[in-house]
Amino acid sequence: MTSRVLIKDLSAQDDGPVSVSGWVDTVRDQKKVQFVVLRDESGAVQLVNPRTTDADGVVVADEPATTISALSQGSFITVTGDLKHDERVKLGGIEIKLASVEVKSHAIAETPIAADSSLDKRMDWRFLDLRNPKQNLIFRIQTTFEHALRTYWVERDFIEIHTPKLMASASESRAELFEVDYFDTKAYLAQSPQFFKQMAQSAGLGKVFEIAPAFRADPSFTSRHATEFTSIDAEISWIDSHEDVMKLHEELLVAGFSAVKAKHGDEITALFDVEITVPTTPFPRIPLAEAKEIVKQRGYEVPRDDDDMDPEGERQIAAYVKETYDHEFVFLTDYASSIRPFYHMRHEGEPGLTKSYDLIFNGTEISTGAQREHRVDVLIEQATEKGLEPEELGFYLDFFRYGAPTHGGFGMGLARVLMLMLHQASIREVTYLFRGPTRLLP
Amino acid sequence: MTSRVLIKDLSAQDDGPVSVSGWVDTVRDQKKVQFVVLRDESGAVQLVNPRTTDADGVVVADEPATTISALSQGSFITVTGDLKHDERVKLGGIEIKLASVEVKSHAIAETPIAADSSLDKRMDWRFLDLRNPKQNLIFRIQTTFEHALRTYWVERDFIEIHTPKLMASASESRAELFEVDYFDTKAYLAQSPQFFKQMAQSAGLGKVFEIAPAFRADPSFTSRHATEFTSIDAEISWIDSHEDVMKLHEELLVAGFSAVKAKHGDEITALFDVEITVPTTPFPRIPLAEAKEIVKQRGYEVPRDDDDMDPEGERQIAAYVKETYDHEFVFLTDYASSIRPFYHMRHEGEPGLTKSYDLIFNGTEISTGAQREHRVDVLIEQATEKGLEPEELGFYLDFFRYGAPTHGGFGMGLARVLMLMLHQASIREVTYLFRGPTRLLP
Repeated sequence: MTSRVLIKDLSAQDDGPVSVSGWVDTVRDQKKVQFVVLRDESGAVQLVNPRTTDADGVVVADEPATTISALSQGSFITVTGDLKHDERVKLGGIEIKLASVEVKSHAIAETPIAADSSLDKRMDWRFLDLRNPKQNLIFRIQTTFEHALRTYWVERDFIEIHTPKLMASASESRAELFEVDYFDTKAYLAQSPQFFKQMAQSAGLGKVFEIAPAFRADPSFTSRHATEFTSIDAEISWIDSHEDVMKLHEELLVAGFSAVKAKHGDEITALFDVEITVPTTPFPRIPLAEAKEIVKQRGYEVPRDDDDMDPEGERQIAAYVKETYDHEFVFLTDYASSIRPFYHMRHEGEPGLTKSYDLIFNGTEISTGAQREHRVDVLIEQATEKGLEPEELGFYLDFFRYGAPTHGGFGMGLARVLMLMLHQASIREVTYLFRGPTRLLP
Repeated sequence: MTSRVLIKDLSAQDDGPVSVSGWVDTVRDQKKVQFVVLRDESGAVQLVNPRTTDADGVVVADEPATTISALSQGSFITVTGDLKHDERVKLGGIEIKLASVEVKSHAIAETPIAADSSLDKRMDWRFLDLRNPKQNLIFRIQTTFEHALRTYWVERDFIEIHTPKLMASASESRAELFEVDYFDTKAYLAQSPQFFKQMAQSAGLGKVFEIAPAFRADPSFTSRHATEFTSIDAEISWIDSHEDVMKLHEELLVAGFSAVKAKHGDEITALFDVEITVPTTPFPRIPLAEAKEIVKQRGYEVPRDDDDMDPEGERQIAAYVKETYDHEFVFLTDYASSIRPFYHMRHEGEPGLTKSYDLIFNGTEISTGAQREHRVDVLIEQATEKGLEPEELGFYLDFFRYGAPTHGGFGMGLARVLMLMLHQASIREVTYLFRGPTRLLP
């Protein structure tokens, strides 16, 4: 028996017997010859079966012809046959002349989604949607990107942690919290690993990372929000300021983008018409106040009462950065403490400003980072000022009562990075199974 | 300014000015000289400060002496000084003669846990417990182990998926399910990525992996159960039987153990008195029925009414395997279908037996694997037989109605592997922050 060959590896093989496995993309069941386009996780190939005729020229109902005639789209089959290189074959210049067809599983003859189906409908049938080569590529890119990040971390002695997602209290705002029945009490789903990656600093782990789910009971339906998302987190000790965090952050993105471009660049161009640019370092850094001035000079007044940016402002500053520095990324730095969590460190002598940043990629925020306040007295003061009860934060404040190094880090949404990297309109396109206020299925 | 050097890198440095950062392990504040043992994520080093005396030989209250006298255990400090190699120094043959001490954060002078504190008490103060070099090593081992697994997968074209943890229904038994308030409805926390990693097979992703949290509302208090745990999952298409899954599984463990032994072997021997053995392949495989016979012949009758093994039986069969094959691992195969989930494939012509296995490591089960049933009619039959409603499983059964390849995979508990690898008595010792029925803090 010949063992299975991935379709992408066929063209490098010599002509001769092969076995391939995959699902039926299309069948052209013609009178004199049958064609099947077979697809697997690596590509597509044409299978061909010339019909047998009897002495009178009448087509014979033999095998594999009968099986092929009965094939529905989506059925999973294993075939054997003779590989032939033939330049005239449009699909990769090869075809397989069939010897046998074994059906592993018949698909029902129904195609719930088509190329022009709505995103929502495609999500209903995500497992069929994912058979699309573009979708398949997205998750191979995801794999490469994450592995490059983790390799960067591991080579630099970062420790991988798995922080608990079940918590006794909120990790961020109390507003967007999922409550869980937990035996005789209540638990809450972690909105971020924030408290626990900071705990690693007091624990003396030095540099830590985690890629894991985070949960927000966010009722919004935008293209960039989900109730469950994959968060990329890192936290490091002994920093001097948020500049050290930004330096880590940009190096990490360079590692990720370099790996994606090297491994998938051509395919991305072919399928998404996108040229991956490995960003140059340092990324541009613009203090938020200055960014708002720049945006204003471009004719856009951010319609907010607080000191924050808004999505249109982020697009405007990104356009400015693209024009001025030809860069897809920009760190907006030094956000007002009024719009930042209590645990962001503030500038010495300028308590209205935090040592924090947002990272904007192609016009959309993908991450927030900061130096954290590690002095417990200052931390309590800032928490109280934000209306939090130090008692409720007791377990967290303990992390700092027993000593803590200076530290900082960031959290970054994986789906946002992929969405913007591939110029997609929604994180739903790059999320394996999206979760939103009205979506828990499949 | 000299930049920070990790303590483990000091011994390779020449004598001269250095800067190190870490936390205070001990202070010996003697009359003529002060000693501090400083610890960072990589090791410990002795700092020394000879006191200054005035013309009359009286000790002067100068710096850094005064700061050192006030140092509490656990305070995080950055020091500068002169590195000196000196064989007489017990701690690594080096010391640093102090020039300056900067306190980043004072620890309160209190030591809630000691070396002999109970495990429960240590978990209350996990961030202090983790400062212990043994605990620190555990998480560096975890990092190395996981990275080796992921590297194995990535090099073999596996795709990394992030399956949702919020689900509309149970993924395993309905008994141990956490319920979440989800806007106007209820959601459930995923007990495993089972359904969704199988979905990847129908989606044509081929080979997938995930390392992510899973949740079980399990009220038990054993040393091997948690309500939240890190699950290592893989699932592959186009297998012939569970044998293909076991082959993947053992290769993966060899990759993981090899990496751990290479990077941490000596340290593990020093701190845990454990010699890491890279397992040889193939691992022994024993059908469950045969295993029960062997155990019986050793004088142990499994006290269960069903066809399952029990923990003592697992220990017995592991002892047998150790004696007979000198192997720490054993696959127990072909479990009765009566004690396996509906989605395990059964043997052709022998529906009482499944194509499944449990993997036993040093006497404890760490994983269950199987070929899955991919034929939707058989799947419905088996689900119905188990008392499940095909309607409730609708979204899952759809994955197979539209075609699916043969496939199989396994789920493995990360903490169990680490516990058994390091001969620890409980998964609590190797879990960053354990979650159990009565533990949600810190």
